[in-house]
Amino acid sequence: MALVGIVYVIWQLRRVLAYEQGDDVMRRISSAIQEGAAAFLNREYRILSVFVAAVATVIVIFLQWQTAVAFLLGAVASAGAGYLGMYVAVRANVRTTEAARSGLHLGLQVAFASGAIMGMSVISFSLLGMTVLYLLFSNDPNCLIYITGFGFGASSIALFARVGGGIFTKAADVGADLVGKIEKGIPEDDPRNPAVIADNVGDNVGDVAGMGADLFESYSGSIIAAATLGAAFGGDAAGAFIALPFLIAAVGVISSLFGIYIIVADKDPNLAVGTRFVDKALALLNSQVADINENASLQDLLDALRHSVWAASALILVLTLLTVIVSGVHFNYWLVILVGLMAGNAIAYVTEYYTAYTEKPTQSIAKACETGAATTIIQGLSVGMMSTVFPVLIVAVAILASIWLGIKADGSIAAGLYAVALAGVGMLSTLGVTLATDAYGPVADNAGGIAEMAHLPPEVRHRTDALDSLGNTTAATGKGFAIGSAVLTALALVAAYVSAAKIENLDLLNPTMLPGILIGAMMPYLFSALTMTAVSKAAYAIVMEVRRQFHEIPGLMEGTASPDYATCVDISTEGALREMIFPGMLAVVVPLLTGFVLGKEALAGMLIGTTTSGFLLAVMMANAGGAWDNAKKWIETGESGGKGSDAHKAAVVGDTVGDPFKDTSGPALNILIKLMSIVSLVFATAFGSGWFSF
Amino acid sequence: MALVGIVYVIWQLRRVLAYEQGDDVMRRISSAIQEGAAAFLNREYRILSVFVAAVATVIVIFLQWQTAVAFLLGAVASAGAGYLGMYVAVRANVRTTEAARSGLHLGLQVAFASGAIMGMSVISFSLLGMTVLYLLFSNDPNCLIYITGFGFGASSIALFARVGGGIFTKAADVGADLVGKIEKGIPEDDPRNPAVIADNVGDNVGDVAGMGADLFESYSGSIIAAATLGAAFGGDAAGAFIALPFLIAAVGVISSLFGIYIIVADKDPNLAVGTRFVDKALALLNSQVADINENASLQDLLDALRHSVWAASALILVLTLLTVIVSGVHFNYWLVILVGLMAGNAIAYVTEYYTAYTEKPTQSIAKACETGAATTIIQGLSVGMMSTVFPVLIVAVAILASIWLGIKADGSIAAGLYAVALAGVGMLSTLGVTLATDAYGPVADNAGGIAEMAHLPPEVRHRTDALDSLGNTTAATGKGFAIGSAVLTALALVAAYVSAAKIENLDLLNPTMLPGILIGAMMPYLFSALTMTAVSKAAYAIVMEVRRQFHEIPGLMEGTASPDYATCVDISTEGALREMIFPGMLAVVVPLLTGFVLGKEALAGMLIGTTTSGFLLAVMMANAGGAWDNAKKWIETGESGGKGSDAHKAAVVGDTVGDPFKDTSGPALNILIKLMSIVSLVFATAFGSGWFSF
Repeated sequence: MALVGIVYVIWQLRRVLAYEQGDDVMRRISSAIQEGAAAFLNREYRILSVFVAAVATVIVIFLQWQTAVAFLLGAVASAGAGYLGMYVAVRANVRTTEAARSGLHLGLQVAFASGAIMGMSVISFSLLGMTVLYLLFSNDPNCLIYITGFGFGASSIALFARVGGGIFTKAADVGADLVGKIEKGIPEDDPRNPAVIADNVGDNVGDVAGMGADLFESYSGSIIAAATLGAAFGGDAAGAFIALPFLIAAVGVISSLFGIYIIVADKDPNLAVGTRFVDKALALLNSQVADINENASLQDLLDALRHSVWAASALILVLTLLTVIVSGVHFNYWLVILVGLMAGNAIAYVTEYYTAYTEKPTQSIAKACETGAATTIIQGLSVGMMSTVFPVLIVAVAILASIWLGIKADGSIAAGLYAVALAGVGMLSTLGVTLATDAYGPVADNAGGIAEMAHLPPEVRHRTDALDSLGNTTAATGKGFAIGSAVLTALALVAAYVSAAKIENLDLLNPTMLPGILIGAMMPYLFSALTMTAVSKAAYAIVMEVRRQFHEIPGLMEGTASPDYATCVDISTEGALREMIFPGMLAVVVPLLTGFVLGKEALAGMLIGTTTSGFLLAVMMANAGGAWDNAKKWIETGESGGKGSDAHKAAVVGDTVGDPFKDTSGPALNILIKLMSIVSLVFATAFGSGWFSF
Repeated sequence: MALVGIVYVIWQLRRVLAYEQGDDVMRRISSAIQEGAAAFLNREYRILSVFVAAVATVIVIFLQWQTAVAFLLGAVASAGAGYLGMYVAVRANVRTTEAARSGLHLGLQVAFASGAIMGMSVISFSLLGMTVLYLLFSNDPNCLIYITGFGFGASSIALFARVGGGIFTKAADVGADLVGKIEKGIPEDDPRNPAVIADNVGDNVGDVAGMGADLFESYSGSIIAAATLGAAFGGDAAGAFIALPFLIAAVGVISSLFGIYIIVADKDPNLAVGTRFVDKALALLNSQVADINENASLQDLLDALRHSVWAASALILVLTLLTVIVSGVHFNYWLVILVGLMAGNAIAYVTEYYTAYTEKPTQSIAKACETGAATTIIQGLSVGMMSTVFPVLIVAVAILASIWLGIKADGSIAAGLYAVALAGVGMLSTLGVTLATDAYGPVADNAGGIAEMAHLPPEVRHRTDALDSLGNTTAATGKGFAIGSAVLTALALVAAYVSAAKIENLDLLNPTMLPGILIGAMMPYLFSALTMTAVSKAAYAIVMEVRRQFHEIPGLMEGTASPDYATCVDISTEGALREMIFPGMLAVVVPLLTGFVLGKEALAGMLIGTTTSGFLLAVMMANAGGAWDNAKKWIETGESGGKGSDAHKAAVVGDTVGDPFKDTSGPALNILIKLMSIVSLVFATAFGSGWFSF
């Protein structure tokens, strides 16, 4: 199935690259973005290769060479998927612009196809990597222990990609806006702004490569956690329990392809036969195929994407039911998959409710903008905090239900914890298509930027804007999935760690447990403080450079001279890479230190502390950021005084505060909680009872 | 000792009331504040009496009448201490203004004496209440269980007082500023502003009555937790372990009086003999008596207060050493008290570092103000998040050290947990004086307001301003103590709960444990969202009323007509009392629901989740708020463009966001974590294993 996914990726890649690239100006802009993105990723990967080599050496010394091999493969596969996704995205952007000249429908096709490549390469590379490792080490009883290294490798890349990409994108964005929009009064994406290319590069390295690596990691981590727990409790039937998460992932490939097909194939003349078949099939399912025509409203487009995800979900439920029956495991495990899928969708729904400008919470922020920036911030933070309630309850109920179903099926708490891991696998089973609906957003965003910079007719920009706002909504949904799955995966990894470290007494009132939990809960705060400060610092450097160029290059403001885009890209790259190292190292070093100094029990406490505290902070930051962003958009539709009013100025303040919240610090926490758990799992056997005797 | 404290309170009260009250204008202003404060507290207590009666009935039905009696006594004692503190504060304010006319020194004397009455009545009432209950039920083996009701009663009052007072004070403050300072351009404390009296009332009901109830609760809770744990593990020697926290509190009364004496008695001609004695005694201790003369700088005044706290700490270490020796308990328990005291001072130091404008963090916010409101907010939140690191490490080390010392002394984890509780008692042992240095701030603040409104010569305002800024610094320190002690107390109460509920399996991976921890960690977010929204709502109502008065009362702006102060006080009162009920109920109902539905194990998880998550959020909010406030003050000294510059405007935004952070939501979290723990402890025996069978 992984190979099927890869074949699809290659086929789709050729199709996307075959689309028209537009005129010379558009090509020039696009290649500037391509160069900037490639330059960033190359430098990032060069730095990471040093880190990866160092960690691999540590693994060989303290553990086994096989784990190091898995670690390297995980790092390479994650980096490869990220690179590929970004490679396509920076080429699909200009093709989307060109396609949008002939209509909204074709624009969506190209942008979504690019997202689909990202989505499918993430799940295929992950599945292929783990399968290769399994085949390689299948005769070794420690096979699954080695495979945890794959997750560790993927996590490490993910953390740096998220943090580095997140700092890059927001530094460039904030830097471009502060001078361009506020000081110089020129519009967004104006080619006179020296930071405009860096801003567009940022969308790709942050939201495509970063998001891809994040979910690559959740996906791999959830499968590894489930397989490890399955091996631990399964006894004689362990084979079936280990196989189940892999099989779910495998049928997930088919389901995702089906979901993607509904959007991509729809009305494409080259695929008319297929579409007619799908159309008929789905007419029975209440005609779920969306009718994307030129007058499609945002809601129609959103429905199209949603139906595609739903179709994929429906198919996976059928296929996993068959899988469960054929595997011979208890029927309850199918219910657990259902629980996971439902929980993921429920969190996504809540996220949308709290961040969409058609709903009360975001509108309450827009209202607060009328009384100034301070009330805007207070209301935004309140909405963000309030928005944690339902995601927490949903995850709590999902955990409770999964544990209950698992215990009822196989009579032990270990089975219950296995079920929690399986719920995580279920939540991510349709990742191929959910990630596609998410990763297409930045492509549409870039396409709009190119339309602006190439001075295309306004209707093109109008169309790409429609695609972009759709992307903002699906991005919110994607973030809901990312955090929900991160929590389940992290908890499953903690359970796997506890089992691997052979911890017997995990009493909450153990001497080292409370300090462990407290320090763990503090980690997300420290991490967020560091990443937010990093954005400020890097943005400040961009502001200085943009101001310098406007000052020193004659004719820049008048449009007679060209700005020096490359220097801004360079500064963002420098800043992002320098600032990602310390928080990234913390995430690896702190759990190891805790495990060795305070002992393995305290480390378990720390992981629980980090997971819960990180979950809450991540949801709060992501939703507050999304709500501020959309409150501004709501005002721009003419509410509360409209664009240019005092309320709008207050909303811009909220939006700027929200930028690092939702695109840097918030998402990076997802990875922090998983990375800390998987580091602990990989080194589980190396920890003792610490330096303190009680 | 409690009676000694009460005698002191009465004596000092008569002294304070004997000071001059100034001219008619001052008296009129002061009595408006007195009436407003009394009206608020009377209405608040009327609402609370319904709540208290209802809970007492529930206790009688589900538990025992003795617990209900203790609950009622706790509620009355806490309310009484709060009422008395406020009664003095609203009378000391005008006397401080009058005293400040003749000099800074006398001004500090009066204001600090008022704070001392609050500090001493809190510890005396608490100690007396618990002693009475002990004498009453000493023949009953469940005596200590009943006494937990005292803590519950105190907690309930504290929560509502903190939340209600916090909403009142910030609604009036923000409302007065938004219209007065920003729209009308009139200075702070201008008598033409209709919300000015409400603002001054708010300082008293929030920072005096609210803070007093908060620490009353920590103080009682830490003693109860220690006594309960002592009874649980002490075996034959239980008597000594139960007595120890009470004895520490008793010698704390003497030490606090000594600390207060150093400030109050210093240079007072009526007490010259005493001072000479103290002067001589302290000359040996490196002459700790501060020389408070007219030219005293802020640093000198701060040193005076600090020395008084240090002197009290030094004395308590001597007295507790004697106590430990006489009690016959292990010497390690004295070290534990030392650990608690040191941890409290260390957290206070960190709080000061992160919020004082002479230090880097606050200055970095001032720097960020230069690039606008958005960077001000981002930098402030970063500083707030970063400021959690050391308090967490300090508490973690204190817990680890206490547990280790306890286990080494008596060989069981139970002894270790007893030691944690004792560290909390140690931290609060000098509460009489630390609270005095804190509660005097609002009096000085009010005194400045009265000076402004009564058009006194500028040097009077200058003097009260000096006292006020000193109060801001000590308030930050007080908040550090409040949160540090709240965490230790809450954890000790959780340990007491686990012991009382007879929970045997507290495994972190228990089926209901993770959901419990998650929901618990979410509570502070929900609670903060509710309280922040409450401030916005109530402030909005004030803004509307102030605008109305300026619009409808002719001659108000010109100063020829008087505003209607009482309506603004009424609106704040209404708003605060209405908005405090839901979050207050949540704090009581959620733990009970969790205990009954998910079972007693899940409740333990919830309490740990709430305590850790609440600790972090409270520190973040309090410190970010304090740092924003002082960043504004730093700019007002002439930095970054000074008053009226764009940077200053951005700083005002930060300060306004920080107001509900540091004075409403942040401090209320201290009580939330204690109240949830003590509710659980009181009902510990009523919970079963929940509705789910695993």
